[in-house]
Amino acid sequence: MVRVLGVDPGLTRCGVGVVDGAPGRPLRMVGVGVVRTPADAEIGQRLLQIEQGLERWFDEHRPELVAVERVFAQHNVRTVMGTAQASAVAMLCATRRGIPVTLHTPSEVKAAVTGSGRADKAQVTAMVTRLLRLDAPPKPADAADALALAICHIWRGGAKTRIEAALTAGHQGRARPGTSWVHGRPRP
Amino acid sequence: MVRVLGVDPGLTRCGVGVVDGAPGRPLRMVGVGVVRTPADAEIGQRLLQIEQGLERWFDEHRPELVAVERVFAQHNVRTVMGTAQASAVAMLCATRRGIPVTLHTPSEVKAAVTGSGRADKAQVTAMVTRLLRLDAPPKPADAADALALAICHIWRGGAKTRIEAALTAGHQGRARPGTSWVHGRPRP
Repeated sequence: MVRVLGVDPGLTRCGVGVVDGAPGRPLRMVGVGVVRTPADAEIGQRLLQIEQGLERWFDEHRPELVAVERVFAQHNVRTVMGTAQASAVAMLCATRRGIPVTLHTPSEVKAAVTGSGRADKAQVTAMVTRLLRLDAPPKPADAADALALAICHIWRGGAKTRIEAALTAGHQGRARPGTSWVHGRPRP
Repeated sequence: MVRVLGVDPGLTRCGVGVVDGAPGRPLRMVGVGVVRTPADAEIGQRLLQIEQGLERWFDEHRPELVAVERVFAQHNVRTVMGTAQASAVAMLCATRRGIPVTLHTPSEVKAAVTGSGRADKAQVTAMVTRLLRLDAPPKPADAADALALAICHIWRGGAKTRIEAALTAGHQGRARPGTSWVHGRPRP
């Protein structure tokens, strides 16, 4: 089992979701929430509040891996700069702690949890609710994407990692629990 | 006199320039350089290296104000995301230390040092060299923009700040040296 913290970056609402899981095993939601910053605050203050908010999530849940949504410049020019800057803060927080960070595109995330890279938000939320066996859709709704990112990472990273871990264990004649995820993460 | 650290953000080369000055007084270059990160490193590692590099500049030169180039989404889509992320790190470093950050557009910077918002890079470098009374153009060349940002901020922030400082001193019946820049910085 591995604990993944997913981040759906944004300046106004930065979605955070923590999931425990392994490929082929039931997933478990550990936590979900949103780090918010006021739209009328200065940009430096907003980035600092995101950093402080994310640090609390890292402190509380101690994720082993972090998955962040990959931001594209061609999407929504009006908000993309803030999204890129919030994602930088998330990557920085993780890297400072030595936690491997992987970026997944929105299409990869949608395909992982719904089977279609073109699924809409309702489909993603429905599948996240089902896969995590929640009684109700995760709240706030924005944070469903962060949970989907974490699930995507567990499944995509998982198959490759298990093979690498098995190979490593075979070569060395012993298992190396706890380290295989770090070395086996997918390259960007 | 005020000490301004200018940052021309970038993932591969992040220009840094420190200038002491005040409106109507000669400017003095305190330091100039570039924080570099390898293009083949992971993005999280690159952001961490930029943070560590900038922290050294803050530690060494103790700037009172920070000026960062404002990044626009419509410019060069291929590199703009990295530029936005590097600028986020610069704003975060300054804000964590309680140092006011101001963004200036490239046009504002060019207009401040050359008189034209459409000046080319050679003009900006020539004027930075002249204004700082350097024997040769600043090296590395990329960092001339960071010095231009710092100069722009001293001049733009300065006029407004002196008026506000005078008003504040008048109202309170005394000068408040050292604090006027913080309270008098231009709002974004």
